[in-house]
Amino acid sequence: MKMKRFPIQACLILIGSLIAIFTSNNLIAQVTSDQDESIYKDFKTEHMWDAKVTISNMIMVGESKRGTRRVIPITGGTFEGPKIKGVVLPGGEDWQLVRPDGDTELNARYLLKTDDGVVIQVINKVLMHTPKPGEGGQPYTRSVIDLEAPVDSKYDYLNHAIYIGTLNMSMSPGEGPAVVIGVYKVL
Amino acid sequence: MKMKRFPIQACLILIGSLIAIFTSNNLIAQVTSDQDESIYKDFKTEHMWDAKVTISNMIMVGESKRGTRRVIPITGGTFEGPKIKGVVLPGGEDWQLVRPDGDTELNARYLLKTDDGVVIQVINKVLMHTPKPGEGGQPYTRSVIDLEAPVDSKYDYLNHAIYIGTLNMSMSPGEGPAVVIGVYKVL
Amino acid sequence: MKMKRFPIQACLILIGSLIAIFTSNNLIAQVTSDQDESIYKDFKTEHMWDAKVTISNMIMVGESKRGTRRVIPITGGTFEGPKIKGVVLPGGEDWQLVRPDGDTELNARYLLKTDDGVVIQVINKVLMHTPKPGEGGQPYTRSVIDLEAPVDSKYDYLNHAIYIGTLNMSMSPGEGPAVVIGVYKVL
Amino acid sequence: MKMKRFPIQACLILIGSLIAIFTSNNLIAQVTSDQDESIYKDFKTEHMWDAKVTISNMIMVGESKRGTRRVIPITGGTFEGPKIKGVVLPGGEDWQLVRPDGDTELNARYLLKTDDGVVIQVINKVLMHTPKPGEGGQPYTRSVIDLEAPVDSKYDYLNHAIYIGTLNMSMSPGEGPAVVIGVYKVL
Repeated sequence: MKMKRFPIQACLILIGSLIAIFTSNNLIAQVTSDQDESIYKDFKTEHMWDAKVTISNMIMVGESKRGTRRVIPITGGTFEGPKIKGVVLPGGEDWQLVRPDGDTELNARYLLKTDDGVVIQVINKVLMHTPKPGEGGQPYTRSVIDLEAPVDSKYDYLNHAIYIGTLNMSMSPGEGPAVVIGVYKVL
Repeated sequence: MKMKRFPIQACLILIGSLIAIFTSNNLIAQVTSDQDESIYKDFKTEHMWDAKVTISNMIMVGESKRGTRRVIPITGGTFEGPKIKGVVLPGGEDWQLVRPDGDTELNARYLLKTDDGVVIQVINKVLMHTPKPGEGGQPYTRSVIDLEAPVDSKYDYLNHAIYIGTLNMSMSPGEGPAVVIGVYKVL
Repeated sequence: MKMKRFPIQACLILIGSLIAIFTSNNLIAQVTSDQDESIYKDFKTEHMWDAKVTISNMIMVGESKRGTRRVIPITGGTFEGPKIKGVVLPGGEDWQLVRPDGDTELNARYLLKTDDGVVIQVINKVLMHTPKPGEGGQPYTRSVIDLEAPVDSKYDYLNHAIYIGTLNMSMSPGEGPAVVIGVYKVL
Repeated sequence: MKMKRFPIQACLILIGSLIAIFTSNNLIAQVTSDQDESIYKDFKTEHMWDAKVTISNMIMVGESKRGTRRVIPITGGTFEGPKIKGVVLPGGEDWQLVRPDGDTELNARYLLKTDDGVVIQVINKVLMHTPKPGEGGQPYTRSVIDLEAPVDSKYDYLNHAIYIGTLNMSMSPGEGPAVVIGVYKVL
């Protein structure tokens, strides 16, 4: 796909206030360099935290109008990263749907409370794909995460980025089952 | 955050069919290695395509109950990647909301048609953040993308991953304004 | 289900600002009277408008990861009610999903422009259910509608209610296919 | 708005499988009769159940990027209607947003368990509007409700309709605060 770029001045007249973002150096540089590279590209991310989220027994709705529905209650936990730490508040839930094509979509919504008393909302949408027998390939678990922090708190910076995540199973002796969720800001 | 891991057998009894994914080698390896690294981490991605999407004049709803609402019609375009190419069908739209805190959320929904006749739905949710004057930092534009391809087509693989994207302004002489959207599979 | 109600004062202390709404006379009266009535109840609504929305040919994605996906472009139209009238702007779309259980969910998003120049966003989510052969019962088509009007316009009142809708097929000679959408405010 | 209707045969050729629903007698009759009536119209509904949902203390995120965010945990309850009854499972939550324009949107998600052991998902989206001082009018609280029942259960009929709801505050002595939610099928 070949395309020329107009001078910035012409763009400004056309689209006004949106332009500032599009002309940021790192975006232009990135798209340009893409064209010389292989199909693999590393996206730099910043690790925000790992959360260890404790869960209780799955509740089955069963085969529903949209797929297989099941719900996993979130009972608590902790989270810690370079610039933030605290606890997972009990009461959140992970509403899962096994889609008609067999993949599982997790839709977890819960609250964090930092050690300095700020409450942050997490919405974590996870896609889990397991290759069918004989299909080859690896199981796949990745997520996109939306964070809502108070705008008048020191964690307001969480409101202004896209996050991707990992999900891993973990258990500590004497505790119930838990998952470990890694949260990464896409830079 | 320190945690021990139970033997896989114990997990299997507890959570059943979900386990296969969590125990995949690359997930466990990744979470482990995180703990030795800096806060920056590269997520490997695969470049799926760049789409050049032509747009027409913005339609303003104005100050709405949820923020500032405006809509940008999508009039066509082309897309091309290592394993796929075709056209952007006219008729999609980008429904934008300037949030109460000043960031802009784009919510674009449109269809692609490959050169071998397959139609693919794209939902592209973009976050645009511009630092306030004196605040420092770069403008930020990143997106998460959902793809819906026919499950009985050769593009079914698009259904089983999380995608992130870039957005850039582009114009070709003699054409109207357009944006360039890069689509990357999170590996 | 039997339940007593505390004096309003106690509620006020507990829940503060939410109370004003719950204690509105018509709500309390209504719930009380429900208990004496048959299972059928009439909800009073106010007819806002009928919109005649012209559409063009359906575009098929086909069998997707969530069900059968198809899209119907919205090409224009008119709308008229007791207190408002104008045109349907071209460019909206109706993104339909045939769910795994056979019902069809329409998700239409389009813009209206009133005869005095105000733009209003419509999101119309329609459920269509057709009884299976031998099952008895009527086909069912009802919708819930979200309206976004500029808060500083004379149509701001549209932002503060729940709407339900009807959907009907209609054609005028010499025009393409169209649907008629009735919009009713739930009082 | 004047419009003629084509013979059914022409429609069938054009739109195929969607037609059955549009031509159902009750829809055509209804739209026709609308034109003779006042702007007020009664929608017949069937009362499905009243749920008494117990709640615990509100958790405040505070002023967020989308408005004021707060969460009310759902701790249990009961529900009962002419054809169904049971309990509200603990663990659901009501995620509330006070929009920039001052209205409150509740987004509650919880599970019911019938007395014969079937689990049903409820998503209840409530709009609460309180007129500003001097503005006149009544407080307004209405909701739209989505129900997901197992398709292979006797409650599958819940999957095939649109529901609207009422919300009322209620307390029983010796219990914590609760809300009463009326659920009505739009016929």
